[in-house]
Amino acid sequence: MRSPESKPYLVTRRLIPENQESPIPFISAAVTPEQYFYRRNHFPYPAISEQSFKLSVGGEILRPLVFSYQDLLRLPSKEIMVVLECSGNNRRHFAPKVFGEQWEGGAMSQGVWKGVAVRELLKWTGLQATAKEILFEGSDYGSRTDLEGEFVFARSLPLEKALHPDTLIAYALNGNPIPYKQGYPLRLIVPQWYAMASVKWLRSITVIRTPFNGPFQANDYMYYPEKDSDAGKMPVTTIHVDSIIQQPIDWSVLEVGAHQIYGLAWTGTGFITKVEISTDGGNHWEPAAIQKDPGNPYRWITWTYTWAATQKGEYTIMSRAADSLGFAQPAEARWNRKGYGYNAYSTVRVKVE
Amino acid sequence: MRSPESKPYLVTRRLIPENQESPIPFISAAVTPEQYFYRRNHFPYPAISEQSFKLSVGGEILRPLVFSYQDLLRLPSKEIMVVLECSGNNRRHFAPKVFGEQWEGGAMSQGVWKGVAVRELLKWTGLQATAKEILFEGSDYGSRTDLEGEFVFARSLPLEKALHPDTLIAYALNGNPIPYKQGYPLRLIVPQWYAMASVKWLRSITVIRTPFNGPFQANDYMYYPEKDSDAGKMPVTTIHVDSIIQQPIDWSVLEVGAHQIYGLAWTGTGFITKVEISTDGGNHWEPAAIQKDPGNPYRWITWTYTWAATQKGEYTIMSRAADSLGFAQPAEARWNRKGYGYNAYSTVRVKVE
Repeated sequence: MRSPESKPYLVTRRLIPENQESPIPFISAAVTPEQYFYRRNHFPYPAISEQSFKLSVGGEILRPLVFSYQDLLRLPSKEIMVVLECSGNNRRHFAPKVFGEQWEGGAMSQGVWKGVAVRELLKWTGLQATAKEILFEGSDYGSRTDLEGEFVFARSLPLEKALHPDTLIAYALNGNPIPYKQGYPLRLIVPQWYAMASVKWLRSITVIRTPFNGPFQANDYMYYPEKDSDAGKMPVTTIHVDSIIQQPIDWSVLEVGAHQIYGLAWTGTGFITKVEISTDGGNHWEPAAIQKDPGNPYRWITWTYTWAATQKGEYTIMSRAADSLGFAQPAEARWNRKGYGYNAYSTVRVKVE
Repeated sequence: MRSPESKPYLVTRRLIPENQESPIPFISAAVTPEQYFYRRNHFPYPAISEQSFKLSVGGEILRPLVFSYQDLLRLPSKEIMVVLECSGNNRRHFAPKVFGEQWEGGAMSQGVWKGVAVRELLKWTGLQATAKEILFEGSDYGSRTDLEGEFVFARSLPLEKALHPDTLIAYALNGNPIPYKQGYPLRLIVPQWYAMASVKWLRSITVIRTPFNGPFQANDYMYYPEKDSDAGKMPVTTIHVDSIIQQPIDWSVLEVGAHQIYGLAWTGTGFITKVEISTDGGNHWEPAAIQKDPGNPYRWITWTYTWAATQKGEYTIMSRAADSLGFAQPAEARWNRKGYGYNAYSTVRVKVE
């Protein structure tokens, strides 16, 4: 009788609605399998009806149209490998601590999305000169703790980002229809932005002439630098350059000898140019070997570093990445009340014995 | 189309060997289902052979015997509901932090074990007057970071504990054969002791005349009060009285209104007599309603407390349990270098808005 298989699972942070993170330390595939793809929900899963297979486009356009799922399949499409990262990823590591889902490093997954560029769709409807933002509404809705009433999950993009040729109405993930929990049948995919922008179960697109201020745009997904006031708030948009150490595991015990330190790095600005490793708590840094994939700036890259742990003792290992636009991970993340955009050095402590 | 089901999963702390904890905040059944039963391994899973279905008994006895699985099924048996808790449970919460698996509250599960008391078995072999301890060896083996060579997972019990009528050679869990990952086909079950004593894949029992000092007895599973010396070390044995808040989740945001605070309480000494809740960081305490099950001191009990959260603000909620032998949870756990026996008040912070 063969010894049974070991496999990781999603880590549950909340069950209703379902919020589960990827077991990032144990994932090696570039494309995250469906069962390990992180799930971030504001509301219970929506029921899928015939209506879900239609996408209405309205507002400041010339010809309001409803596209069926089949219509979309017939339009010119593209496929892109994209890292989707929740803006609350690593919230658990903020100091002082903040309220909200206590994500560690796994509110992040990667896949190959296929679909039609929003700009391709808008060729059919036209666009009025008054257009300022494009509003994307999902099918998921429910109540909030801070406001009375029911709300649909809806987010807008500035025109420029919405019309970027890689902002897609996706209908497939990794060669298959999008999994139900990832937004089936249609999901907006906004590369380089935190994933609150990539609206799941997409049901309508509305071109608007004034800034959208729904609660998922104007209350949540804002950086609030102050604990007790809203002064200085700024919208959460682009993914911050970041890296994560997958192995070794934090607070683990290792034998004397050579160990591979490895992990992932990604950014919303340009592409990763450098990952450095420190094994002495940040005093000295050495370059890691990074995966070469300059063709795709939207995906994470893997990196690895061989560490000769010849001396017994306790070590603080860190990684930090930098990108082609000159952004680099900070030693400390910029604290904000709702805990978004954490990207301080990834740190693990190990004991060699 | 119905909305998809949400379910929790085991939380992976390490994959080789497999170490995964129960999603305790999301579990309501008294008997932990197999897929949520925590897994704590020192070594890769052992292969199961014909030999695994035999249990040899030797050492300071009168008649060495080998019992087959079928022999055991024919002997007088008993069934007991037992909480098994890893002695490293909640290691993550020690301050200063310690190395080892960073278990939160889920290195703990509960089930109904059926089997033959060790003392029943020894009626067949007899016992010599020189007998001092009984050694139990599992089938799992491998290397350690701190010592050269290979080691079998083996632990001894003092004669008195081994001969307690509820110390069982179990062959069934919850009415079925023991799951492979829980020690199939035979597992020692030692109620009231931390679960390192409940040796999985049990293959031999040896009555010995001198204290056993294998590494899982004399190196691990010792409380070391000092960081840099072994002074004052004491073996890990009985489960400390403890409780855990399952809901609300730590750092979650709640609406103004009534909320159920609920969780579990258990002890290795006597039975639980009291669980108290504080919603103001430990200044005032109120009794929770506790499940009445005086018939079984080995299982956890559930408790619940209705909290009228009428004021917006940030709250520190705590639970603490006490037992019939006068043990009570401390405000701070007793720090020890390997991080065993954590049982400080369970604490969650919530924001009401």
